[in-house]
Parts: sequence; C-alpha cells; structure tokens
Amino acid sequence: MKPPIELLDFLKTEDRFVIATHINPDGDGIGSAIALSEALKQMGKRTLLLCRDAVPYICKYLPGSDRFFTYETVKTAAADISSYKNLILVDCNHPSRTGMDKVNDIPFDIRKSAVIDHHETDRDYGDIRWINREAPATAMMIYDLLKELGTRMSKDIADNIYAGILVDTGNFRHDNTSAEVLRIAADLVDAGAQPTQAYRSLFESWSNGRFLLFIKTLDTMEIKDGIAMVTITKKMFEETGTTADDTENFVEFPRIMKDINVSVFLREMDSDGYKVSLRSKGGFNVAKIAAEFGGGGHKNAAGCTVKGDLQTAKREILSRIKAS
Amino acid sequence: MKPPIELLDFLKTEDRFVIATHINPDGDGIGSAIALSEALKQMGKRTLLLCRDAVPYICKYLPGSDRFFTYETVKTAAADISSYKNLILVDCNHPSRTGMDKVNDIPFDIRKSAVIDHHETDRDYGDIRWINREAPATAMMIYDLLKELGTRMSKDIADNIYAGILVDTGNFRHDNTSAEVLRIAADLVDAGAQPTQAYRSLFESWSNGRFLLFIKTLDTMEIKDGIAMVTITKKMFEETGTTADDTENFVEFPRIMKDINVSVFLREMDSDGYKVSLRSKGGFNVAKIAAEFGGGGHKNAAGCTVKGDLQTAKREILSRIKAS
Repeated sequence: MKPPIELLDFLKTEDRFVIATHINPDGDGIGSAIALSEALKQMGKRTLLLCRDAVPYICKYLPGSDRFFTYETVKTAAADISSYKNLILVDCNHPSRTGMDKVNDIPFDIRKSAVIDHHETDRDYGDIRWINREAPATAMMIYDLLKELGTRMSKDIADNIYAGILVDTGNFRHDNTSAEVLRIAADLVDAGAQPTQAYRSLFESWSNGRFLLFIKTLDTMEIKDGIAMVTITKKMFEETGTTADDTENFVEFPRIMKDINVSVFLREMDSDGYKVSLRSKGGFNVAKIAAEFGGGGHKNAAGCTVKGDLQTAKREILSRIKAS
Repeated sequence: MKPPIELLDFLKTEDRFVIATHINPDGDGIGSAIALSEALKQMGKRTLLLCRDAVPYICKYLPGSDRFFTYETVKTAAADISSYKNLILVDCNHPSRTGMDKVNDIPFDIRKSAVIDHHETDRDYGDIRWINREAPATAMMIYDLLKELGTRMSKDIADNIYAGILVDTGNFRHDNTSAEVLRIAADLVDAGAQPTQAYRSLFESWSNGRFLLFIKTLDTMEIKDGIAMVTITKKMFEETGTTADDTENFVEFPRIMKDINVSVFLREMDSDGYKVSLRSKGGFNVAKIAAEFGGGGHKNAAGCTVKGDLQTAKREILSRIKAS
C-alpha cells in the first residue's frame, strides 16, 4: 500500500503536526498515532498527540502513550498547541469522530490537514486523504508509510504498530489476517515488539469487577435452537462497580460453542428499553434483524434498540430470528 | 533448524513409513503427522498414520485427518501394517507416549525408527533422533524438514502445519511466538492456510455442555489476595454430560484479570481427593507449591493431587500459596 506523494511531501515539508485519533481510542488509534509521531521525531519534526479521552488502561504499556494530551490538558501552556498549524487524523477520517468539532476553546488554527484511515467514509475531510478500506488496520498503513519515509524501526515504534495490528485482527484470528499481516508482525518482532506482553496488556487486563460482571452475564444465558441469549441489567453494573464499557466483546463469547449460530446480547438502558447486540456465524444475516428494529450493521455483526420490558424485548428479538 | 542428514537419507531411501503420534493427540501431533505423510506421498512413498485415540473433533477439519488409524482399526487387512518396517514418531519421543508399548497384537515389526519432537526427553529411543526443545512446535520442525526435502507446499500441507503452530503457540500469544513463527505462518497463508477457519475449529468448537460446565465452574470462583480459585465436582460433570477432557484450559481463564497472580483449579477425582492445577503470572513459582504436595511442573504451570474433602484441600493449597 503506497502512501500518496502529497502525504509524503506534507510530512517532509512541514515542521509541526498535531496527530489526533478518535474518541474512545483503541490500540489501533493510539498505536498508529504514536508510531507516526516517533517517525516524525526521527525527521526532526515536532508533534503533539491528541485525543478527547485519556489513553485506556490496556494501552498504557505502549512506549510514548504518556505523551497524549486530552482536550483539557492540551489547553495548558505546556502543550503549546497554538504554535501548530497542521493536523493529521489517524484511524478516523473526520473531526466529528474525534469530538474536536464540539470543542470551541482549543487554541488550534488548522491550516492544512491529512487523513490516514482504513474505515468507511461518506464525507470528504482533509486536504490530503489516504483511506484504504482494504487495510486490516491503520497501523499497517503506518508501517508502509514509515517504510517510504525511511524511518528506522525502533523497538518503541514496533511495539506501537504491533498493538494496532493485534487489536484490529483480534490477535490474528479475524478474517483480515492475511499473509502480509503475519509477515509485517514478524518484522516488528524482529525489531523488538513483544507478542506476549502485547497480548496480555490488550486482551488480558480485565478488572475483577469486569470478570464478575462476565460471570453474572453468563449466568443469564439461555440457549435454544442454535441461539444464545444473555442479558445485563443496570443492577448488575451496580453490584460489580462496572459500566457499559466493561461489556466490550461479551457478545462474541458464546460463539465459542460450535452449535451456536446467533449470539444475542441485551443491555438495559438508562432510558426505557434494551440495547441489543447481535452476532452470527456463516450465512445468517443479523443486519436484517437489526434493521427491523431500526438498527443496522453487517451480516455477522449488528445492533439495535428495543423498547419495553425484558421479556417483551427477548420475545420480539427471538421471534424475528426464528422467522428469518 | 536443519534436520539431520540421517533423517533425510532415511526418508529418501525407504519406501513405507508408519507415522505415529501421542495419545490424546492435539493439533501439533495430528497436523505434523499428516504434513509429513503428504510430503512423503509427493516422493512416491507409502505412509500409514497411526494414533491410539481417534482424531479429536476440533482437528477433523484438517485435510487428511480421515486417514488416521487407531490401534483397533489398524489391525484390519486394509491397513496392511504388517508390510511396514519403518516407524516415525512425531511430537513425542518414546513409544510409551503413543501407548504402543502396551499393545501386543498390532502386526507391526519395527526395523528402523526415527523421532521428530520438541518435547523434553530423558530416554533414548530411535535409530534417528531429531529433538529440538527450542522449537515452538513440532510443526515448525516439519516445515523445515519439508523445505530440505523440496516438498511442494500444497494447501493441504499448509493447513496442517498451521494447525500445529496455532495450537502450540496458543494462537500466537505464548512467549514462544518468535518472528520466525510469524514468518512461517505468513508463508503458510500464502500457500492456502486459512487463519480464521483454523482458529474457529481449534479454539471455538466447544460443545454446549462444555460451555455450561464452564459457567458452573466460574460460579464457584473465589477471589482473594490476587488468587482465583475454582472447583469442579463429579456432580457438575454429570449435570452437563461432560468429562475431565472438557476442562482443558479452564485454569488459564482467570488470568484474564490483571490483578490475579495465581489461578487454582480443583477437580474432584473418582478416588478420594482433588486434582489441583496451578497457574501463575510473572515471578510466582507454583512448581514449588505443587512439589510440597508431591506434584511438579514449571514455574508458571504446575499440578498435584490433594487428599481429603474440598474444604481441607482448598485450605491447604491456599495456606501454602500465602506462605510462599
């Protein structure tokens, strides 16, 4: 994946860059931003790493993660953001994904912007746009960009790119795990990236409360006709000291069973009703089910909300799944 | 890892080989044996795949897995085992690990034997011994052997070697995940191996009963001072229609919590007492604990048995852990 010439020129010509990633940042956003920042540092440039939210706990092992500013801390004089005129968005392609468009008082005057991302887009933002929806991770694009820039692959850069790849390929288990992904991962390990440390930090850093929530969630499981259904109530969050963030990937877990084709996850909302996440294997299209409730998604991963009490919500979802 | 010349000579000179792997076979034993068999087939040789136990469900997706004989089916005329004189042990290094030494009536007269393995050994078996304890998987050694033999890397061979690597590196998360592991995995994907299919088959093929047993096990969890302890009783096996085999890797799961340093798993035995599995992170040495009960293992993974009722067993294990 060759980066566009204009992007290379932009990085070589300018001297100071704000590198921002999306809200609720993950290993691909954080790792890609830091790796690019380190490469620009090698070129003698100054960079400022920016994200609305603090770096999540699981990414704090990444070298350079302590250099991120939030929208609060970036207003301090130490950040000196008013001296920057160039913006690079990483792992997202519009300021709305960074939350930046809603903050008026960051003293940042953008003169030129670039976008490096592998997500779908329906809006044109950025003077330079490098969007590759085929890329398994933005970190893979950063790897190619750094090759073009002639960056020395330090251990710090390798750790950050490896994190992005690990998160977005689900530790080499999603179907975007290509030979190229594995070959680049090998190069990164040669450069010092540590697979076990990365896996433990990114996938095995649950709080005890999250684990207790997981057990309580599994206890609600009902299995019937190849469908597994679990529920989380507000009371369960209270009892375990957790929040909705702690439920990430819970809906994936029941597919560990070979005879489960659809996994349904219902989470009680603060307002009336339930947030429903749907996952399927093979040919079963859950996006169609979600669409019937005004939601959306892809064939094997979709979501919607259902009004009413739990029994009604379960009954409605189940009947639509069985009818399809 | 260069295979010994004598092994290459043996494979090139002889015409018929029995390839056997260990009892309770896993993806590395099955995959390595099939891959070697396919390579020898390319050389015009005949091979017979042998294992005491049937190929496990999770390995049945592997091309060639239906060619395995058990110690029962190999006695039939179709197997024609009496016409074979050469034995290759794969992923084990002594006939006792295959259970073959206990079966008298297999009409098999071994004239020459070879061993290809990455496990520890304290006995010398085999006219030709290729044992590399540094190899992450026997499948990695098979990969190198096939390169030396000039084997064409077919999709069928690639799938089998990939399975061995995946199982023995825990899908690229154990600390044997080297750059070489990832680079060879990339070559195998280029040759047609399918990461997602392999992962789903090998790691996501639980029966519903096993999943219910998992939930029941987690429900027994007690967490204190960085120690997580779970118990499985005979009653739980009965209630879920499962056996001890279904508990594989359960003891690993609590380490998903960042604050858990030791995971203890107690399984009620048919005879008096409990089988105890211990796992730890970092510096904590569970082999020392296990040794105090007459068991053994490594620093981060060990096991032993404890006599008496459940409360006594738990108390004794916990007090030793806290004292160390």
